[in-house]
Amino acid sequence: MAKQKPRTLSGFMELLPEKQAQFDRMMALLRRSYSLYGFTGLDTPVIEASEVLLAKAGGETEKQIYRFTKGDTDLSLRFDLTVPLAKYVALHYAELAFPFRRFQIGKVYRGERAQRGRFREFYQADIDIIGDGKLDITNEAEIPSIIYKTFTSLGLKRFQIRVNNRKVLNGFYSMLGLTEKSGDIMRTVDKLEKIGPEKVKDILTGEEVALTAGQADEILRFIAIKGSNAEVLSALEGYLGRDEIFDQGLSELKAVVKYLSAFGVPEANFAVDLTIARGLDYYTGTVYETFMTDHPEIGSVCSGGRYDNLAEYYTDKQLPGVGISIGLTRLFYVLEEQGMLNPQLNTAPADVLVLPMTEDLSAAISFATLLRDSGVRAQLYTEQKKFKQKMSYADKLGVPFVAFLGEDEIGAGSVSVKDMATGEQVTLPVSEAVAKVKQAVAADEAVAPIREV
Amino acid sequence: MAKQKPRTLSGFMELLPEKQAQFDRMMALLRRSYSLYGFTGLDTPVIEASEVLLAKAGGETEKQIYRFTKGDTDLSLRFDLTVPLAKYVALHYAELAFPFRRFQIGKVYRGERAQRGRFREFYQADIDIIGDGKLDITNEAEIPSIIYKTFTSLGLKRFQIRVNNRKVLNGFYSMLGLTEKSGDIMRTVDKLEKIGPEKVKDILTGEEVALTAGQADEILRFIAIKGSNAEVLSALEGYLGRDEIFDQGLSELKAVVKYLSAFGVPEANFAVDLTIARGLDYYTGTVYETFMTDHPEIGSVCSGGRYDNLAEYYTDKQLPGVGISIGLTRLFYVLEEQGMLNPQLNTAPADVLVLPMTEDLSAAISFATLLRDSGVRAQLYTEQKKFKQKMSYADKLGVPFVAFLGEDEIGAGSVSVKDMATGEQVTLPVSEAVAKVKQAVAADEAVAPIREV
Repeated sequence: MAKQKPRTLSGFMELLPEKQAQFDRMMALLRRSYSLYGFTGLDTPVIEASEVLLAKAGGETEKQIYRFTKGDTDLSLRFDLTVPLAKYVALHYAELAFPFRRFQIGKVYRGERAQRGRFREFYQADIDIIGDGKLDITNEAEIPSIIYKTFTSLGLKRFQIRVNNRKVLNGFYSMLGLTEKSGDIMRTVDKLEKIGPEKVKDILTGEEVALTAGQADEILRFIAIKGSNAEVLSALEGYLGRDEIFDQGLSELKAVVKYLSAFGVPEANFAVDLTIARGLDYYTGTVYETFMTDHPEIGSVCSGGRYDNLAEYYTDKQLPGVGISIGLTRLFYVLEEQGMLNPQLNTAPADVLVLPMTEDLSAAISFATLLRDSGVRAQLYTEQKKFKQKMSYADKLGVPFVAFLGEDEIGAGSVSVKDMATGEQVTLPVSEAVAKVKQAVAADEAVAPIREV
Repeated sequence: MAKQKPRTLSGFMELLPEKQAQFDRMMALLRRSYSLYGFTGLDTPVIEASEVLLAKAGGETEKQIYRFTKGDTDLSLRFDLTVPLAKYVALHYAELAFPFRRFQIGKVYRGERAQRGRFREFYQADIDIIGDGKLDITNEAEIPSIIYKTFTSLGLKRFQIRVNNRKVLNGFYSMLGLTEKSGDIMRTVDKLEKIGPEKVKDILTGEEVALTAGQADEILRFIAIKGSNAEVLSALEGYLGRDEIFDQGLSELKAVVKYLSAFGVPEANFAVDLTIARGLDYYTGTVYETFMTDHPEIGSVCSGGRYDNLAEYYTDKQLPGVGISIGLTRLFYVLEEQGMLNPQLNTAPADVLVLPMTEDLSAAISFATLLRDSGVRAQLYTEQKKFKQKMSYADKLGVPFVAFLGEDEIGAGSVSVKDMATGEQVTLPVSEAVAKVKQAVAADEAVAPIREV
């Protein structure tokens, strides 16, 4: 028979078992972390009606959409988890309790140009808190504290959550009489880290944005405000009293900084950064970006902010919210590239490979059952192979333990357990063997998937 | 602004938070159960190149495929998890250890006619064990034992795994000289439960299959063999010695029955059933179907079997395997329809709603942090609302506990905890409050998502 050459599409991540186990551990820790903060897990369809999904989209996004017809229906694959959330909340408004806190970890699709490290199918891991009409400022401080805890639980230490407030920026531009140009200005300032202050000034005073040199300097001076959070806030107080929006933004920013400390986020892991604006127009208050200290070139690995109208394309209800998103597939790719996936993580499919050494499998089956009932992952190996091949299989899987049950062991109600890392082999009563392995498994479960060196 | 009416496509399941929590609990238990048996979790792309995905497909399946082009590429959404597994194993053959045991829980797509209880996007939960050249018969007994344990862990009790062997059937048809018609015969016999023996006989003796009445009677007599597993096996022994394939199949069937007992599956939960054939041509040995005792009308909720060539469309390597698949979305739908989702399951997004009663939130934040560090899901509620509205929010969420921190509590280092089910409220030192809630959470976690009445 002619064979079809198997392949996986470029831009689609498909992992080998060990790497998949590492990825899955990260996902499980994210789910756990989000759940501990009272977020409910949602799962919306990957396919939506195009007119619903694209109610808002336009420009660059629309070109990237996977869009097609099936029968008479115009369908699209979701390109983020925010639009489906907006649809969900508008559709099920009457049945939800607000504030509505949801997390969603799911695949999204963007037909980007194929490029190393760029994915067309990738996981996003989002949390959002949606209010009905109003939403307290505390939520804007809680979100980054959740990110802090979540990243820490993954094993990351050297990262910084940078916080700004769009009202501070908008208010400042209003002081300069530049409100109408604030979108252009923010998009330009957003590039500061990449292109430097001089190029930013060039663009600001260029044909398109058309600021005076004085205005551009004032903007560059403003976004150059640096220092500890207290110092930045204090410098900002110098601008108070000139614009109502600015004053409100500064008061929000101060509240966020105050509560972030209360939530236990160390100063080293967050900073007020006036250059952060976020490209998207719909953020209206606090905005966040998160950078890995040793890898600023990667850009933000977790971004988000406060918005006033989640679902304005679907409903008249005002639904303010705050949320963040982690691009999980890209983060994983980067961590692997940087050698930051922890090799200590147990990524084997089982904790124990049980090798029956007798024709009758009853003792081996009982032992495997006992292990599983104790929460230990056990694989029974019953293929007719030479002993050496069995051990080489255990090696290849990377199982931490192999358990042998021969005539002697069965007669004595014991089992021989080999620690594959140390090579040490001991014969123990069955219950002690289970306890020994269980202890090792518990230690394994405390290992973080990311390691910083 | 003109609003776009939000909607979710028909045939796509989108659950409200409580139901989603129930569904997620089922998925988590499946993952846990599969992991305990040494299966590694895989995640393959939802989109594949059409020529890869459809290398084998044809007829009914092909019509249902979501297929489209993006740029120049002909793409399809996966319609099951078996073809992607075949591709994966053929593609990554050199990097895998065999037997390769993998589970995958993921969404698949079939553009079926819209109909109540039929889904176009649905989860399958699959396990497969793939051998390289050979695979021991023990695996064919272990698979249904895993299903038994898995269903039991979900809370199902009244179900029966029915087992047959294609070699027994093929051998039997060979005895009657009907090998070439065995496919047609098996597809007809497969309908026995639905249409009854007379209609089966009509079809068998009809124009298309064209058996003699004698042959049809012999077949009906054969598949009418009933009784305990021992009785069925004993009746089958009467046919021994007439066909080699039959003899081999019977010996496999006996081995599976023997080991199923060793694996601890009670006789009430499995039965040799000679009417089970499975429609798909690629099963070659043991086949399984699983029925809910009180709802046979639902059909099989978990099916599978042994096959000789997983990846013959991609590789010359012989890769025999055995696996089963649960149609999770449909199962969930049916369980809900039948009122079998356990209302005792805690589906609230949090275990405790923490209500600060003072301006300063520090004590409330500390308490929430303490709860989370103890593995308790806690939501901090900071909206400016009346007390009654806060309590009504707690009610709506269904949280088991509300914790109040007022001046008195904070001064005394205590917290007031209200049990929302009983209405009982106690003021306890913080550490005791945490312990009390933690205990309740542990009890909650033991509750099964399915309840049979």
